[in-house]
Amino acid sequence: MNFRSDNEAPVNQHILEAIIQANQGFEESYGYDRYSEQFTQQCQQLFQAWCEVLPLTTGTAANSIAMALSCPPYGAILCHEDAHLNRDECGAPEFYTAGAKIVPLPGEHGKIDIKALQTFLANSGVHGEHESMPATISLTQCTESGTVYSLEELKAIKAIKEQYGLALHMDGARFANALCTLQCSPAEATWQAGIDLLSFGATKNGAMMAEALIVFNTKFNKQIKRLRKRAGHLISKMRYVSAQLVRYVENDLWLELAHHANSQAILFSKQTAELVELLHPVEANEVFCRLPIELIESLQKQGFEFHIWPGYKDVIRLVFSHATQQSDTEKLIKAVSQHQA
Amino acid sequence: MNFRSDNEAPVNQHILEAIIQANQGFEESYGYDRYSEQFTQQCQQLFQAWCEVLPLTTGTAANSIAMALSCPPYGAILCHEDAHLNRDECGAPEFYTAGAKIVPLPGEHGKIDIKALQTFLANSGVHGEHESMPATISLTQCTESGTVYSLEELKAIKAIKEQYGLALHMDGARFANALCTLQCSPAEATWQAGIDLLSFGATKNGAMMAEALIVFNTKFNKQIKRLRKRAGHLISKMRYVSAQLVRYVENDLWLELAHHANSQAILFSKQTAELVELLHPVEANEVFCRLPIELIESLQKQGFEFHIWPGYKDVIRLVFSHATQQSDTEKLIKAVSQHQA
Amino acid sequence: MNFRSDNEAPVNQHILEAIIQANQGFEESYGYDRYSEQFTQQCQQLFQAWCEVLPLTTGTAANSIAMALSCPPYGAILCHEDAHLNRDECGAPEFYTAGAKIVPLPGEHGKIDIKALQTFLANSGVHGEHESMPATISLTQCTESGTVYSLEELKAIKAIKEQYGLALHMDGARFANALCTLQCSPAEATWQAGIDLLSFGATKNGAMMAEALIVFNTKFNKQIKRLRKRAGHLISKMRYVSAQLVRYVENDLWLELAHHANSQAILFSKQTAELVELLHPVEANEVFCRLPIELIESLQKQGFEFHIWPGYKDVIRLVFSHATQQSDTEKLIKAVSQHQA
Amino acid sequence: MNFRSDNEAPVNQHILEAIIQANQGFEESYGYDRYSEQFTQQCQQLFQAWCEVLPLTTGTAANSIAMALSCPPYGAILCHEDAHLNRDECGAPEFYTAGAKIVPLPGEHGKIDIKALQTFLANSGVHGEHESMPATISLTQCTESGTVYSLEELKAIKAIKEQYGLALHMDGARFANALCTLQCSPAEATWQAGIDLLSFGATKNGAMMAEALIVFNTKFNKQIKRLRKRAGHLISKMRYVSAQLVRYVENDLWLELAHHANSQAILFSKQTAELVELLHPVEANEVFCRLPIELIESLQKQGFEFHIWPGYKDVIRLVFSHATQQSDTEKLIKAVSQHQA
Repeated sequence: MNFRSDNEAPVNQHILEAIIQANQGFEESYGYDRYSEQFTQQCQQLFQAWCEVLPLTTGTAANSIAMALSCPPYGAILCHEDAHLNRDECGAPEFYTAGAKIVPLPGEHGKIDIKALQTFLANSGVHGEHESMPATISLTQCTESGTVYSLEELKAIKAIKEQYGLALHMDGARFANALCTLQCSPAEATWQAGIDLLSFGATKNGAMMAEALIVFNTKFNKQIKRLRKRAGHLISKMRYVSAQLVRYVENDLWLELAHHANSQAILFSKQTAELVELLHPVEANEVFCRLPIELIESLQKQGFEFHIWPGYKDVIRLVFSHATQQSDTEKLIKAVSQHQA
Repeated sequence: MNFRSDNEAPVNQHILEAIIQANQGFEESYGYDRYSEQFTQQCQQLFQAWCEVLPLTTGTAANSIAMALSCPPYGAILCHEDAHLNRDECGAPEFYTAGAKIVPLPGEHGKIDIKALQTFLANSGVHGEHESMPATISLTQCTESGTVYSLEELKAIKAIKEQYGLALHMDGARFANALCTLQCSPAEATWQAGIDLLSFGATKNGAMMAEALIVFNTKFNKQIKRLRKRAGHLISKMRYVSAQLVRYVENDLWLELAHHANSQAILFSKQTAELVELLHPVEANEVFCRLPIELIESLQKQGFEFHIWPGYKDVIRLVFSHATQQSDTEKLIKAVSQHQA
Repeated sequence: MNFRSDNEAPVNQHILEAIIQANQGFEESYGYDRYSEQFTQQCQQLFQAWCEVLPLTTGTAANSIAMALSCPPYGAILCHEDAHLNRDECGAPEFYTAGAKIVPLPGEHGKIDIKALQTFLANSGVHGEHESMPATISLTQCTESGTVYSLEELKAIKAIKEQYGLALHMDGARFANALCTLQCSPAEATWQAGIDLLSFGATKNGAMMAEALIVFNTKFNKQIKRLRKRAGHLISKMRYVSAQLVRYVENDLWLELAHHANSQAILFSKQTAELVELLHPVEANEVFCRLPIELIESLQKQGFEFHIWPGYKDVIRLVFSHATQQSDTEKLIKAVSQHQA
Repeated sequence: MNFRSDNEAPVNQHILEAIIQANQGFEESYGYDRYSEQFTQQCQQLFQAWCEVLPLTTGTAANSIAMALSCPPYGAILCHEDAHLNRDECGAPEFYTAGAKIVPLPGEHGKIDIKALQTFLANSGVHGEHESMPATISLTQCTESGTVYSLEELKAIKAIKEQYGLALHMDGARFANALCTLQCSPAEATWQAGIDLLSFGATKNGAMMAEALIVFNTKFNKQIKRLRKRAGHLISKMRYVSAQLVRYVENDLWLELAHHANSQAILFSKQTAELVELLHPVEANEVFCRLPIELIESLQKQGFEFHIWPGYKDVIRLVFSHATQQSDTEKLIKAVSQHQA
């Protein structure tokens, strides 16, 4: 019973079938296939706006190309200190931007603290060319703590972004999960909230290896294809990536899958509300909770798999995915309840 | 009838089935899956040697990480002027090496001219730190002209590499096709011929998106996983890449597929030997030939697809792949023969 | 009366004369001049050890090449959050290392907090290749707050560096000032304290444009000349840089100049001890103090020049240099005393 | 008697005096000094146009920042195969551009062959994002072969640059020498000839360490100061660099010095016209000539210093500089004449 990561889950059956369907005869290579074209159209409908769409195979690539498009080498990227692009990409943003500076900011529950952001920007610039020039704010939605920025919170960041003329990027590795929580349209959650570039994740939510960088602002899509190519991310048989994406958003499959994942996390947290201490509010498909070490060991022995959070001994992360079976969630709830009783 | 590119061919059915088979339940992510492990073992058997194996999704990534491993930023990469990594990767090797210099060398039929290589190296160094330091020789096997370096030719390059203490890389995007021609063991064609790093291609020869960087020399595998990660090439659900590779080399499928492709090219070139002028010897699965413009147009009208070679009006490239049907090859032969008659 | 920066001070007369002396006839270019050779020998005597010496014209270049030598692109540099290389070099270390990650650490009075350093390192590595690999600790001596790490404090950092197998770099833009305070030998203050690479500053302390990167550990001097060249820092008429350095260390001129600067800062801080609030202990040639805004304005009107510290309205930095006249220091003391009285 | 390099010559006395003069009291640091300001004004008068002026200490830095301003990482730089930035900068342009591709072009006497340039550009683009995008043409004036592009030749390159929308850079390490030969105004030789960015050299022609990047086209001066800073090229006491430049162009000193150097080369080549074989026309201050090996050895024994050209045994380069004494030139002529007689 795997609650370790949505990356360990299998591919959703519909998406696998779409790949199989795409395997018919010859098809133009290097991204000029019919599926890539179709997915761009789907995105433009979905987001009710022009957008440039770049299919990719990893979120790190999507984030990094977004940074390369929006932040010059002498620029600075402002993000939460726990942001994936600060902590978990082995310097990929620094690599793709040719050495931009990441400025890690504090904030509760994985969200950038608005005051810290304002203070940093207000003080920046006094030292002229000696400082990296703030260029891009990147936020993760859902955050690395499993929380979701509200539309209100996004609005506050949008105001700051506009005041300082910055680009705003959203790392949406779990964008579908966030959207289910926000219950708004994709447009409201992104470009209407000031997002210029979106890393649109599909892999964690049921695809095999399919992400897309979606650029809403024409200021930031220059030579995007060359950036993909020179990073080695132009898959020659791109049809097999894009076919995943096409099916992912078809008939709201993506939202259905995310809704399932979220519902399992919420089920768990509600049923165990009086038993476990949550480190962060449960707003999507992840639960970070403190448990007695004894219970953690007991759960492991019973075959529940999860990560003990780095830096802690008594904090675990549970990830619920599109593939989590409710019966497994219930077994987990039962196991926790019995121990605490 | 597609003779444009092996990248436009569909995935081989056995490999597709391997992907489907891999879609069972949860599996460790980020390259720590059973298939990645298995493929490493297969490679060590296949090449009869220790080797580090890094599954990837593109040849550009494999080539570029190979360059980053073997050539420092102040180093130079020596390759044929038509090498994919010089002409067709939009500066990826320069990007991954943080600015190494590519030194393009001339040579007939896509092969580095040995004398040009020797002359360059003999003259280099006189200007000390003002010059980039020769670090890596990269050769493509099969070459971009569809030819194959003989073991003799490789031996000559090996001697030079050893004399100057350089690394030797093989871009084996079509390595299987070359091996069929050489009729030697994988070991003889690679590390025994002095190859330190091999970009082992599978995509063009039937896989969906699967390549591997294989490092035979422990001098060049330092932090190879971090290089993959920070380039955004660590696929989270790596099992679906590695499962392709596992099946690709199982039961000699890779050689069977390459043999078919080569046989079609040879069939075509033999049957039309007195009718068409070849630009390069046909030694694998590609044919570069000069045809009357009238014939080129006629073939296009009959539904034959191929590239007219950049810079020419009367030269076409025909690529025969694992998926080329012999009946199509025969139709093409017939169409050429009738016109010339 | 300039207390703004030691960078605004003129060149010491002895050093200027050394430049004039060097202007005799022809001399080998690109660093192969007699002065560069002589300075290397002087350094080896001064530090009582083998060392590689690379004359340069800026501290940013010295720091950045030190980072490029010791930290790979996938590595991390640990330094104080106020370190010059984090705050004031517009991303130069990220540029020279091809995208290494800077990890800013907290700490009082400009010194890296030992516990924060230990905690970061103890927690690092759990996420394998997803994390940048800690490679280099960089500390500034004197710090950006005008304080000096004691030999005890350096010892604690050395122990950590050795435990984790890291490189240790010292940004010694004001190394002479620190040495005067420590009253130990250059060897004790550097390689005996675990320093592998030293940015040896001379410009702020009386030279025109002369710094040197000094490498004590042969692990970190590979291709150091190529790194200088490709950064555009190989001055063709290097004799004029090295002649400055030769004179700077001759007859203890460097220590004499630094001693003067320090003595002025100490004179000021002692004479005003009961009148001004110090933000940091005064341990070298800089004073950071809080003053009534009224007094600040009054001093400015009287012709005293200094920086109001970014982010504050009532904090100023006073820099005393080799060129500060004691009469000016006394005028400043008097002006402060009279106002406070 | 040094004919090896103008980099080995001493500093002109007027320029040295200007440095000494600049050493008066305190002066604003980091490029905000009065001399930097004055030199910008002088340039604008000299070139009769708006221009951004960036004082630097090396030509490699000037060239590299010019490339970083005009060529993106996915771009290509077209230059002569012997261009300093291709052969003698250890990959500096690749470094500063974050991996742009240098395309070396052939051409007689160090000048880019116009047809080769046209052919390359006409064929480029067919492969879309797979190719680096041509962005900048860089030419050296005087060339590395000591020749000078005529205004006619520059006009032809300008037409190509405009046709393809490229930037045009001039590496003017010996710009003064070229200007003396062209006998036209600085404006005619640069922006009126289509030059967008000029590396304006002074060091080889009498300065100590002073070059400037001059940008005539506002499209290419964005964040130029941040690029200088993050490369470590912002000299803190910049006044001492800019004071050299101010004096260099004052009262036509630069032209006077260059004229002297050129006149010596011409004197030598005329007097020995029937005795030595020239490899390139002598159009400025350098002579490349083939001599009997016996004579070369004899000259060396007589104390004449020069470079035997790499790759040759019987070709030498003679460089005549602002500091060459006519009596030495005459001795050299005599020594050659006597031997040949």
